Amino acid sequence: MSLLTGVSGPRDLDGLTPEELVELAGEIRAFLIQEVSKTGGHLGPNLGVVELTIALHRVFESPADRVLWDTGHQSYVHKLLTGRQDFSGLRTRDGLSGYPSRRESEHDVIENSHASTVLGWADGLAKANQLRGVDRHVVAVTGDGALTGGMAWEALNNIAGAKDRPLVIVVNDNERSYAPTIGGLANHLATLRTTDGYERWLERGRQVLNRTPVVGRQLYGTLHGAKKGLKDVIAPQGMFEDLGIKYLGPIDGHDIQALESALLRAKRFGGPVIVHCLTEKGRGYQPARDDQADQFHAVGVIHPDTGLPVSASGADWTSVFGDEIVRIGRERPDVVAITAAMLRPVGLKRFAEEFPERVFDVGIAEQHGAVSAAGLATGGLHPVFAVYATFLNRAFDQLLMDVALHRCGVTFVLDRAGITGPDGASHHGMWDMSILQVVPGLRLAAPRDADQLRAQLREAVEVEDAPTVVRYSKGKVGTPVPAVGRIGGMDVLREAESDRPDVLLVSVGALAPVCLEAATLLDRQGISTTVVDPRWVKPVDPELPALAARHRMVVTVEDNCRAGGVGSAIAQALRDADVEVPLRDFGVPDRFLDHASRAEVLAEIGLTGPDIARQVTGFVARMEGRLDPASLGSD
Amino acid sequence: MSLLTGVSGPRDLDGLTPEELVELAGEIRAFLIQEVSKTGGHLGPNLGVVELTIALHRVFESPADRVLWDTGHQSYVHKLLTGRQDFSGLRTRDGLSGYPSRRESEHDVIENSHASTVLGWADGLAKANQLRGVDRHVVAVTGDGALTGGMAWEALNNIAGAKDRPLVIVVNDNERSYAPTIGGLANHLATLRTTDGYERWLERGRQVLNRTPVVGRQLYGTLHGAKKGLKDVIAPQGMFEDLGIKYLGPIDGHDIQALESALLRAKRFGGPVIVHCLTEKGRGYQPARDDQADQFHAVGVIHPDTGLPVSASGADWTSVFGDEIVRIGRERPDVVAITAAMLRPVGLKRFAEEFPERVFDVGIAEQHGAVSAAGLATGGLHPVFAVYATFLNRAFDQLLMDVALHRCGVTFVLDRAGITGPDGASHHGMWDMSILQVVPGLRLAAPRDADQLRAQLREAVEVEDAPTVVRYSKGKVGTPVPAVGRIGGMDVLREAESDRPDVLLVSVGALAPVCLEAATLLDRQGISTTVVDPRWVKPVDPELPALAARHRMVVTVEDNCRAGGVGSAIAQALRDADVEVPLRDFGVPDRFLDHASRAEVLAEIGLTGPDIARQVTGFVARMEGRLDPASLGSD
Repeated sequence: MSLLTGVSGPRDLDGLTPEELVELAGEIRAFLIQEVSKTGGHLGPNLGVVELTIALHRVFESPADRVLWDTGHQSYVHKLLTGRQDFSGLRTRDGLSGYPSRRESEHDVIENSHASTVLGWADGLAKANQLRGVDRHVVAVTGDGALTGGMAWEALNNIAGAKDRPLVIVVNDNERSYAPTIGGLANHLATLRTTDGYERWLERGRQVLNRTPVVGRQLYGTLHGAKKGLKDVIAPQGMFEDLGIKYLGPIDGHDIQALESALLRAKRFGGPVIVHCLTEKGRGYQPARDDQADQFHAVGVIHPDTGLPVSASGADWTSVFGDEIVRIGRERPDVVAITAAMLRPVGLKRFAEEFPERVFDVGIAEQHGAVSAAGLATGGLHPVFAVYATFLNRAFDQLLMDVALHRCGVTFVLDRAGITGPDGASHHGMWDMSILQVVPGLRLAAPRDADQLRAQLREAVEVEDAPTVVRYSKGKVGTPVPAVGRIGGMDVLREAESDRPDVLLVSVGALAPVCLEAATLLDRQGISTTVVDPRWVKPVDPELPALAARHRMVVTVEDNCRAGGVGSAIAQALRDADVEVPLRDFGVPDRFLDHASRAEVLAEIGLTGPDIARQVTGFVARMEGRLDPASLGSD
Repeated sequence: MSLLTGVSGPRDLDGLTPEELVELAGEIRAFLIQEVSKTGGHLGPNLGVVELTIALHRVFESPADRVLWDTGHQSYVHKLLTGRQDFSGLRTRDGLSGYPSRRESEHDVIENSHASTVLGWADGLAKANQLRGVDRHVVAVTGDGALTGGMAWEALNNIAGAKDRPLVIVVNDNERSYAPTIGGLANHLATLRTTDGYERWLERGRQVLNRTPVVGRQLYGTLHGAKKGLKDVIAPQGMFEDLGIKYLGPIDGHDIQALESALLRAKRFGGPVIVHCLTEKGRGYQPARDDQADQFHAVGVIHPDTGLPVSASGADWTSVFGDEIVRIGRERPDVVAITAAMLRPVGLKRFAEEFPERVFDVGIAEQHGAVSAAGLATGGLHPVFAVYATFLNRAFDQLLMDVALHRCGVTFVLDRAGITGPDGASHHGMWDMSILQVVPGLRLAAPRDADQLRAQLREAVEVEDAPTVVRYSKGKVGTPVPAVGRIGGMDVLREAESDRPDVLLVSVGALAPVCLEAATLLDRQGISTTVVDPRWVKPVDPELPALAARHRMVVTVEDNCRAGGVGSAIAQALRDADVEVPLRDFGVPDRFLDHASRAEVLAEIGLTGPDIARQVTGFVARMEGRLDPASLGSD
């Protein structure tokens, strides 16, 4: 690793020879395979951008020039070239983030790991440069997958509208985001990939016209009338030029010299320009290249030689859903599935294999996932849109205005809800149970274990006149948590040992074991505790206020932000029923959470059995010191 | 109106001669001008689609074929042709909706009046038809403005990806949405509008090639190598064909015969096809054509002959903002403004006149408005994004992940927040104060009058490390509501007449007069009431819990949905401070609200002084019957 260790910043690349750059690329690939195998991470995408990142940092001068990465998981090479070569703690607490991080480096700008944002950021930065007279470059690195997102279109439209505002757009085209990119854009990019043919043809066409000057003049004359140049007409370069963005490409994304040459042309262009680079995801690592499904998009800990997982994975929430939706699909021909470019991560692979015509991959296009679901439902089907909880934020307006306002029977399945862990602030699914509270008619389920997930999914797809949502955690599903009773639609998980119990503990979703542990600890303090799982957290179960009134206090626990969450909804339901039992709501505090393991984050924010028990004990003590218990909770 | 009154459904158009159809179009225009003048409404857009709507209903068979309208305000003609000719109550309570309404007619499908949705709906419906073997047509009518929205792109990408799925897209191109359409797409459409030139050129080119067979053969040979047909290469039809969607056009959108002919071709095509129609907004009504700004996009009550407003308008919230942002702009060269295709409606016209280079119209692209604002802020400017409250839902993810996570100083100005009125369910701005509660670091102001709007806007643009939001109502701003004191950051609007007051009434924004009326009524019942305006409703003022503890109960009033709103946030703050004072929160209930005047809607949902006083009185009576007041609220 002699060359790589000599690079402590982008300018250290300047003195390297072409041969040394190729050697450096090899070192970086070896480093990534070795290091990411140990920690897990986005291996495939980073193996694809080694040469591109080197070329970008040779041609542009970060951080004065702004080099922006869409979906920052492809920034590992960028980190290596900007002074961050200790990958031992990648994606773990206090280690390197798996995404750009402004705390880590002045070379990082965008931390958001939701896709398709980079062109919008770049447009803003370029406008600011222009207005403030800052003569620096803005370079946005995006992908063919990210271009399927609506934000990318909105940005392209704006960027194209200003011919005099320099902005370099690098399209890292590996023909896939997670899975292969789909739709009209993918087809169009495939056409552009054969542009060599046009350029050769253009050259031949010129020769032909030169040999027949009269025809040539006539053609030029007509072209003039059509206000188009010869090149525009006989060598159309596609929709980017149609929109008014200069197109350069396609460029071999693994040829550093070709990349540098194209990027230099783009840098000097003086207006919006696209550099279309063709890369291979997983380049240089045979196990990744052999992986048809996603070319090691994101891996856990693997053996570096074979690429095989080191620990075998048990049943996770995703596969429980994936199996059950197949069974439902067999029974209900009207059930169809939607994914936003994440067929396998959301567990729809088996459904797609069995019912290929009933699954729709819409691209990185959550808005379209939701609005087309409204259309599908209106057309007589029952769509199930499986999506990471954090990405549902992209479709909030469509869920509200298209699905809910029109009372469409659409089921949203939110994977990776709550605290996720190593992907950091933008991947926690900690907003869904709050923003969904405002959607009229929506029903929201938070299953606590695999059995409940299966049961509640089935209940959800039965609802034909309103949106339903089933949300669950990331990772392994815990052991079943049996109900010991039922009140209304709520499962009683634990009966209090007293006829006049102190605490009603309302447990949401996968936190049931945490709540049961807290209840045991409270009982040891002489605080008798009932634990219920409401199963459906919106609407609030109509039996809940009366049940609350039979306790001295209510405690709610959810791994969702406290603001406007399930606890707030229950507190409101108690107020509306004139039940004045004190309530304390535990959840995620009002701040962004850094990357760490799920268990570490839960501990940090106090969502553990001992923490909850301690807090509740303290509150009970304060309550007893101040209030006459007899005045509270009598029904 | 002899012809029009004879049309009670689309099939009544079948027997009309071409001349009668032209006569009918004239009748419809006269009807619209006469009727919409009386009620107000979207006059300009509907005058532009008279012939198009007639042609659509002649060629397609609604409701078996689905005719879908983007931004349904252009559906008046559609209503007239589908049995709804009583426009006397347009946009008023119990009268016709200003948008499609499934309750009104089986010919209506999409009620949502947020733009750019129709292609997504159409994609879903077309998929459902295909899967279910339903041999009917889906026709989506969209506009050049709506195509600038990201949803349109996501849908086009999906539609283009399925060559065998029939879907007719009508682009009603009037070169504007509200204001002129901007960006690369607008430029491209302008190019397409000259396609006649290409077609003429294509014909001449063919003649030239035929006269020189050798050259012709050579060119064809090369074309064959490039896998493109002659027409594709010498007559490129732009980005739609690049994506894989058949393009027909441009068509004169006021020539019924030409429209029918094109729509018939599209109907028979058997795959995705775009029919590009050129129309004039405000067609046939000189006052609208003379209106450069927006061609009578939406009007109030006007005089039909002159187009002049019948009632002069006083100061409204929008103009207060519009004036103040100009003053701020003069003082702060770093302040820039953003609008999503609504420069004038959000009050930025004067700012744009004075600082043309500092205002950015991003198209109907709220996502881009927010994300490019993050870029502008990171580039050293302070953007002010003025947008209708209901449309902010489109940019929720970008506000959260791009602006807030990156701690960008961006000010969002939410016009038409709360209950709006005649535009119905999808135009009420009743979600913002709930969903914004979950955004870490965000500061949210709800000014109660013009002075407060000016003051709080200035406070907002001073914040450089977090998003700020200023939200205000639609329509006239009321008389100033003076503060009689200050506690923390809160204005005291009314001191209770007792040393030991009963009720702390927390008034949010423009509902201050309602709250003061309620307080007066409560006092008459012997219930002494303090009224405060927190001014900034997020975060909750740190002095509020202590103030609440000096009262026997707290009442919150907001014209925002109750779920997760300001009342919920205050209740949570009280819990966190161990303040066990009962609270009742008044706001918008958990359902969609029909069109009616703002006053009618507020009355319907109980947000009036008398209603609130009655409710609070009842609660106080129940509380006194059950609880010992001495046990509550003592500090």
